[in-house]
Amino acid sequence: MTDRIERSFNAQTMMHTLGARLYSVSPGCVVITAPILPGSTQQHGFGHAGLTFAIGDSAAGYAALTLMPEESEVLTAEMKINLLAPAKGDLLRATGKVIKPGGRLMVVQAEVDAIEGDKITPIALLQGTMVPVAIRS
Amino acid sequence: MTDRIERSFNAQTMMHTLGARLYSVSPGCVVITAPILPGSTQQHGFGHAGLTFAIGDSAAGYAALTLMPEESEVLTAEMKINLLAPAKGDLLRATGKVIKPGGRLMVVQAEVDAIEGDKITPIALLQGTMVPVAIRS
Amino acid sequence: MTDRIERSFNAQTMMHTLGARLYSVSPGCVVITAPILPGSTQQHGFGHAGLTFAIGDSAAGYAALTLMPEESEVLTAEMKINLLAPAKGDLLRATGKVIKPGGRLMVVQAEVDAIEGDKITPIALLQGTMVPVAIRS
Amino acid sequence: MTDRIERSFNAQTMMHTLGARLYSVSPGCVVITAPILPGSTQQHGFGHAGLTFAIGDSAAGYAALTLMPEESEVLTAEMKINLLAPAKGDLLRATGKVIKPGGRLMVVQAEVDAIEGDKITPIALLQGTMVPVAIRS
Repeated sequence: MTDRIERSFNAQTMMHTLGARLYSVSPGCVVITAPILPGSTQQHGFGHAGLTFAIGDSAAGYAALTLMPEESEVLTAEMKINLLAPAKGDLLRATGKVIKPGGRLMVVQAEVDAIEGDKITPIALLQGTMVPVAIRS
Repeated sequence: MTDRIERSFNAQTMMHTLGARLYSVSPGCVVITAPILPGSTQQHGFGHAGLTFAIGDSAAGYAALTLMPEESEVLTAEMKINLLAPAKGDLLRATGKVIKPGGRLMVVQAEVDAIEGDKITPIALLQGTMVPVAIRS
Repeated sequence: MTDRIERSFNAQTMMHTLGARLYSVSPGCVVITAPILPGSTQQHGFGHAGLTFAIGDSAAGYAALTLMPEESEVLTAEMKINLLAPAKGDLLRATGKVIKPGGRLMVVQAEVDAIEGDKITPIALLQGTMVPVAIRS
Repeated sequence: MTDRIERSFNAQTMMHTLGARLYSVSPGCVVITAPILPGSTQQHGFGHAGLTFAIGDSAAGYAALTLMPEESEVLTAEMKINLLAPAKGDLLRATGKVIKPGGRLMVVQAEVDAIEGDKITPIALLQGTMVPVAIRS
């Protein structure tokens, strides 16, 4: 399972650009971390909402993929994000999980936290829908 | 008005990283374009949802900022994105507009299109809420 | 097409409870109206968000159903509503339309307006996803 | 605190129409229950999404109101609902809670469950934003 998620994750050049790392993979739950790189900020120097969204959406999507058949890939149908606090700290951590599995649709959730020393601040909450797609070979 | 939006846009290092460009600014409507850079893809080589979200969210946020008082900045409170088609083409174009202005909240919308030659394909629709924040000086 | 939508609409007892009426049906677009009944208010006497949601969601769902195969019914997978103004007036009108048709998912939108004399005020904007389901017979 | 929530709840005629009951109130968490009345169904006889939305939104809103100053009321700015399963059973139960309190905005969540005998099935997950408004006297 982890191999398959890693292959897909590593094929996402956006994850490399953002410095994101696949931190852990278990059935229905995936954690991705990312630093706030100098090239990932909004106008006040905090992490850009695009960064927060990208790792939250990917964590949720890969959480769904862990529960999908081997021959499928995952697509985001829709995702909603509520931003809770500015993205500042040493590291962002996105924890995605499956709320409702299903053959056609999976409802997922992700929380993104900012970690600074031993302080953990939730910065975003995401809720959305993932769909399996057959791999084109 | 355009000056102020440009200053804020240029201060977003994420926009530089994504190769995004502030294409046009008018009251309540802002257009941002971005290529699909080699470092901006998902696992199939199409533009990453994080790219689509980032330019759609920024276009909607700056559309709101055009209608806010001079001494304020804009923050995304929440944003929802429905993905309509893969992000492939020569250029992505995000058109953000204000649906409902307001002193405390602004409801915004953005459409993101993929442009390939003379073909325009809507790839995402966003709907969300922007809030003005006083600039810290 | 209209017959099928009417049959389904009339089978929704909630629409009767709310006094809702199927106003018009055309391919990819459905309009539903409803008064603000004495039993449909929130704590300030305006129309309840549940009323606004119910007719907006139904208009969007039936808009999707007009483009689905004859032997299918429609289910809401997810829906997001931004409330723009209080629901007050003589009548509420929900206009649902299909943004992106598809065999597995349809992206839809609805606007709900409050009508008072000749004044039309947008009170809500909805964006969501409809899925076709096979009719069980 | 409970008195104030009860007064507001009882002033919502929609809650009476739906047979909804304020089940419990604690700081940042409110539970509302409702039967699936004969007048609250969709076309297949299950509870209407408008019912599920109405009690989920109200539970989330009142959860926010428990943390707002005495002289304020609560409005839904936006709400997103993912439907997980058909609303069938003896009773629906909506549990709303505050994810992120704040003076201008509160991010809230609600889960709606269908209860049938001793079986509890999650049927919807909501995520949204509540805003305090000064009471007009």
